[in-house]
Amino acid sequence: MTAVQAVVEAGGEAVTRLMDRVEERMSELAIGHGDLLARYAGDTIAAGGKRLRPLLVCIAAGVPPPETDGLVRAAVAVELVHGATLVHDDVLDGSPLRRGRPTVVAAAGRGVATATGDLLFSRAFAELVGARSLPSVRVLSRASLELAMGELMQRADAWNTSVGVERYLERCRLKTAALFRAACELGAIEGGGAVEALGAFGEQIGLAFQILDDVLDVSGPPERTGKPRGADLLDGTVTLPLIVARSRDAELARLDVRAIRTVADAAATCERITATGALGVATARAFELVARAKSTLPSLGDGQHAALTLVADGVVERYA
Amino acid sequence: MTAVQAVVEAGGEAVTRLMDRVEERMSELAIGHGDLLARYAGDTIAAGGKRLRPLLVCIAAGVPPPETDGLVRAAVAVELVHGATLVHDDVLDGSPLRRGRPTVVAAAGRGVATATGDLLFSRAFAELVGARSLPSVRVLSRASLELAMGELMQRADAWNTSVGVERYLERCRLKTAALFRAACELGAIEGGGAVEALGAFGEQIGLAFQILDDVLDVSGPPERTGKPRGADLLDGTVTLPLIVARSRDAELARLDVRAIRTVADAAATCERITATGALGVATARAFELVARAKSTLPSLGDGQHAALTLVADGVVERYA
Repeated sequence: MTAVQAVVEAGGEAVTRLMDRVEERMSELAIGHGDLLARYAGDTIAAGGKRLRPLLVCIAAGVPPPETDGLVRAAVAVELVHGATLVHDDVLDGSPLRRGRPTVVAAAGRGVATATGDLLFSRAFAELVGARSLPSVRVLSRASLELAMGELMQRADAWNTSVGVERYLERCRLKTAALFRAACELGAIEGGGAVEALGAFGEQIGLAFQILDDVLDVSGPPERTGKPRGADLLDGTVTLPLIVARSRDAELARLDVRAIRTVADAAATCERITATGALGVATARAFELVARAKSTLPSLGDGQHAALTLVADGVVERYA
Repeated sequence: MTAVQAVVEAGGEAVTRLMDRVEERMSELAIGHGDLLARYAGDTIAAGGKRLRPLLVCIAAGVPPPETDGLVRAAVAVELVHGATLVHDDVLDGSPLRRGRPTVVAAAGRGVATATGDLLFSRAFAELVGARSLPSVRVLSRASLELAMGELMQRADAWNTSVGVERYLERCRLKTAALFRAACELGAIEGGGAVEALGAFGEQIGLAFQILDDVLDVSGPPERTGKPRGADLLDGTVTLPLIVARSRDAELARLDVRAIRTVADAAATCERITATGALGVATARAFELVARAKSTLPSLGDGQHAALTLVADGVVERYA
């Protein structure tokens, strides 16, 4: 059983029903915007993903969560924004596969994929507006802005090995943790809970999630991650494992990331990063964030506390 | 004096002050999201364009318009969405120049340009949320969705010469007229005016605007349009002039648009389309739409009626 399944189970029937409604709504949206979207984006929005962010929306609203239309809309909106970023990321990376299926860009070209991402993004706002909550729209628009700023920051910092830990963490906050924060805030708004405290929880587990993702890029194995080791190195993305390793290995410190051109080069650099013990340092950082996220949870009902703790542990479990 | 300047003048000092505030806000936004946006998007969002859509927002709110923060935000939001679509369009077309300056994609590559478009788009919603009007956010989210659907429809219909007038007009409505409608609706919401009637006005002049743009693509001259004649033919976009010409010229009716590969091919096809009289038919259609837009304006103050009429005529004037 995956961590997500465990949370759904722990959350009880209301969470199960809500997640079913989210799934149903995602399927409706996949076929409700014309042939092209149905043909190419179906795999991304209807068939895909762990639905971690919608689950966060649900359980941040309470356990059992209120089974409102607004909560379903918020959960769907967050997942649509996530889907939009995936579709655009795949355009930029030219990725052939996602979740084992052809990406939109592979199946239909850059034009359709860029427009599909824009459509998912717009659809997210249209969906959330139906919940009639201006604070919710504010949360989603801020998160979307931060995602785009994180993407720009990543492009700006590409190949730049002088990027330090602080700047790396800020980039993670923008490109990943902001949407985890938004998921928790949207749930808290709908459930009448502690918006700022639950948002901070979301942000911390989002940071941990991204750090562990960056560790997995170095550690592999490819059979598990679905991509060759060192994909980040190959597109010039400087992550925590490399930053730490450079402080421990003079040869890595002198390495020009642009010189890494092949999958074999990247794998060799990954070995070298691993040999410094940097993965352990980065992993410990992620575990600390998860521990802090759990320890700073506000006072909640037992069921909600347990469910949020399970999600936090689930983020770590991906790695352990 | 351009039509836009004439409208600003007719609208009086309040319109001038509002448009100055819009300009100021656009400049702030261009420099307020980090170096990358300032470096590459400045030309698109700060220095550019006729500001036709923000002007529509202002005068749809009344003449003189209320000089509210909300109206400035709405005007800026519409222009940001417009800017986002331009940046993404340039990515897809690989355009080197816009408004005589390098495009974001030419200056900074696809990654930065895609993220920049996403950022402008998110920023539009963040800007509008500050106006604290859920109906306004609903209007913008619907328009954004329609823009993306229009873009998808254009991709779906590429090279397809069986596209008829109705489907062509629906595509124009989605990809162009929806944002003109939204501009008028946002102004009407802020000014307490007739939202549906002003929105319908906006949609009609938006349709006329797109039809005339498509006529200009065939008629040129390139010195005026800044692009070679027949650019639409070269990327497979079937527009009203071709649809009409095909019904009048059997050889054009048999033409496979994919066979048009060079600028010279495109220019020759443009000549042939022109020879059928199709441009006159398409232009007449646009003029009819403008006339209908003006004649169906609701009862308004004299100043507002005059200003909206000037904008409608300005759309036509581009062609005359």
